[in-house]
Amino acid sequence: MSGADDEGTYGRYSNTAYGKKPFRRSKSHFTDRITADGGDGWPVEAGRYRLVVSRACPWASRAVVSRRLLGLESAISLAVADPVQDDRSWRFTLDPGDRDPVLGIRYLSEAYEAREKDYAGGISVPAIVDVPSGRLVTNDHQRITLDFATEWAALHRPGAPDLYPERLRAEIDDVMEGVYRDVNNGVYRAGFATEQGEYEDACRDVFRRLGLVSRRLADRRYLVGDTITEADIRLFTTLVRFDAVYHGHFKCNVRKLAEDPVLWAYARDLYQTPGFGDTVDFAHIKHHYYRVHTGINPTGIVPLGPDLSGWLSPHHREELGGRPFGDGTPPEPVPVAERVPAPGPEAAAEQP
Amino acid sequence: MSGADDEGTYGRYSNTAYGKKPFRRSKSHFTDRITADGGDGWPVEAGRYRLVVSRACPWASRAVVSRRLLGLESAISLAVADPVQDDRSWRFTLDPGDRDPVLGIRYLSEAYEAREKDYAGGISVPAIVDVPSGRLVTNDHQRITLDFATEWAALHRPGAPDLYPERLRAEIDDVMEGVYRDVNNGVYRAGFATEQGEYEDACRDVFRRLGLVSRRLADRRYLVGDTITEADIRLFTTLVRFDAVYHGHFKCNVRKLAEDPVLWAYARDLYQTPGFGDTVDFAHIKHHYYRVHTGINPTGIVPLGPDLSGWLSPHHREELGGRPFGDGTPPEPVPVAERVPAPGPEAAAEQP
Repeated sequence: MSGADDEGTYGRYSNTAYGKKPFRRSKSHFTDRITADGGDGWPVEAGRYRLVVSRACPWASRAVVSRRLLGLESAISLAVADPVQDDRSWRFTLDPGDRDPVLGIRYLSEAYEAREKDYAGGISVPAIVDVPSGRLVTNDHQRITLDFATEWAALHRPGAPDLYPERLRAEIDDVMEGVYRDVNNGVYRAGFATEQGEYEDACRDVFRRLGLVSRRLADRRYLVGDTITEADIRLFTTLVRFDAVYHGHFKCNVRKLAEDPVLWAYARDLYQTPGFGDTVDFAHIKHHYYRVHTGINPTGIVPLGPDLSGWLSPHHREELGGRPFGDGTPPEPVPVAERVPAPGPEAAAEQP
Repeated sequence: MSGADDEGTYGRYSNTAYGKKPFRRSKSHFTDRITADGGDGWPVEAGRYRLVVSRACPWASRAVVSRRLLGLESAISLAVADPVQDDRSWRFTLDPGDRDPVLGIRYLSEAYEAREKDYAGGISVPAIVDVPSGRLVTNDHQRITLDFATEWAALHRPGAPDLYPERLRAEIDDVMEGVYRDVNNGVYRAGFATEQGEYEDACRDVFRRLGLVSRRLADRRYLVGDTITEADIRLFTTLVRFDAVYHGHFKCNVRKLAEDPVLWAYARDLYQTPGFGDTVDFAHIKHHYYRVHTGINPTGIVPLGPDLSGWLSPHHREELGGRPFGDGTPPEPVPVAERVPAPGPEAAAEQP
């Protein structure tokens, strides 16, 4: 099932956002759902689907974190695309022979075309592909993680947290809606703006919302309830990119994340929680943004900064209480095959 | 007297630095000196010369600070160019009729051409123009302030500090040489780099030198001796621009100035000293860099940040002792005609 009036999400705008119209994120094109009852024709099934991501992408990274927290690694496999797209978009040049070893394709677009012949829309991650047929099932980044948390429950690990508890859904949805508009998507509106006023409106929205969120988090450990929820995952994947790319590259530079004591401690708390920081690849993040968006950074030079060593410093947020995994437990360490390489020397402080 | 093998300094590279060669700052073209004995044909004389600057430019701003500290305002008048050059370079579009009211010219280049017919080199600030003839005397930014401090002594205000004391000159020159290479000019080498390696070398030099300077300043109030000298002026005009433009626009983003407690307090101390902060125009600084360097920032969008309110916060550097003006006194307030407008709302924090 696909909404014919929509365009792809992530990946597309990086080449097209420099026109005169304000940046507008298109809805996902393919919105089929993988569900417990298989109502859309795609039943939850261990080993059948492949999650294709870029570790650069905040929307895809939600799914990577969610999969880790829920222990879905053995139920749905992971393909990691090269952080730098070429003119055919996301590609598997990190894999031997430049092909995804499971799907056998060189470009994610091949799965889109297998789904819809002569597809000419955007190629976006996260994408879930049906391995037997090679067809794209969904690239609906707003829905994928919610379905991981609910529809995929039968395949969750023992001790998996409830990331979308029923009794809190109204509050979670409400928080996520403001964070999406002003922060997750707001940084893109600021970064891809082509007019001063459009940029300023977006940048003000970013910092207004961050201010609200910072006050909310001053005396509570997590955004909703006293455990980690989907709302925290969605805020985290933007915050972890903030100083590395949004601050400079997208001009969201009123202050660094590291200059907001509450948000900086909150982000470090999550980063240091199994399932969050162990999914983050700062090299992929920086290379993607600074090398792909030539309309913003024509030289393609990737900055040395920021100094990332602070991410591992004590955050003291445990003093606020909270139960990160509720009645559950933290996930096991990352499977060896999926480990993110340690950051290179560019991550270290440049003190003499 | 002019070095025929040299090119202009500030202003020129902004249009030409995007070739494949590493950025290299040219020496000044016009190196005549205005001296007490008039040896180059330009004797020190009250009311005869006009100092042309942009408040955006760190090299020109040295001369503005020096002139303030020494009380040379009535001896040498000041022309402030529009921070955004056009294809004819620095222009007087801030003045009524778009002409400098004293020199009567629309472009600084007219004074260069009056000096040298068919001059085709760079047009740079700071520039000193002989008012009676309309001819450029010097654009030698490394020399102008030293001559203000020494050759112009007869016209200094009562209580003017000694900014270049004879007994400390070797040490001042030594400190300034490293700061020039790695910091004053280093940020430009980083920002105008067209190759990754070239950028990284420059950026590492910037932060290595800042680290050395930070350690030097940890237990002493000023760079050399216990009073403000030319060395402090030269470091200040780069530091005051650091978070506003060099951090993001020039990718010197290992850390913000505000993240180095020693340098940040040192810079605030100077900023709050009469003659320093009262010369700084953050709007001119930001508009110049972000709008002129379209090879780095093609959209020309000027960021809202950083929050500048911290510049007026207490620095506690007086606890280190030191005598800012030595046996002298602080300068009088800025003459009304030369006051920098208060920063607009973009300078305020964007907290809700």
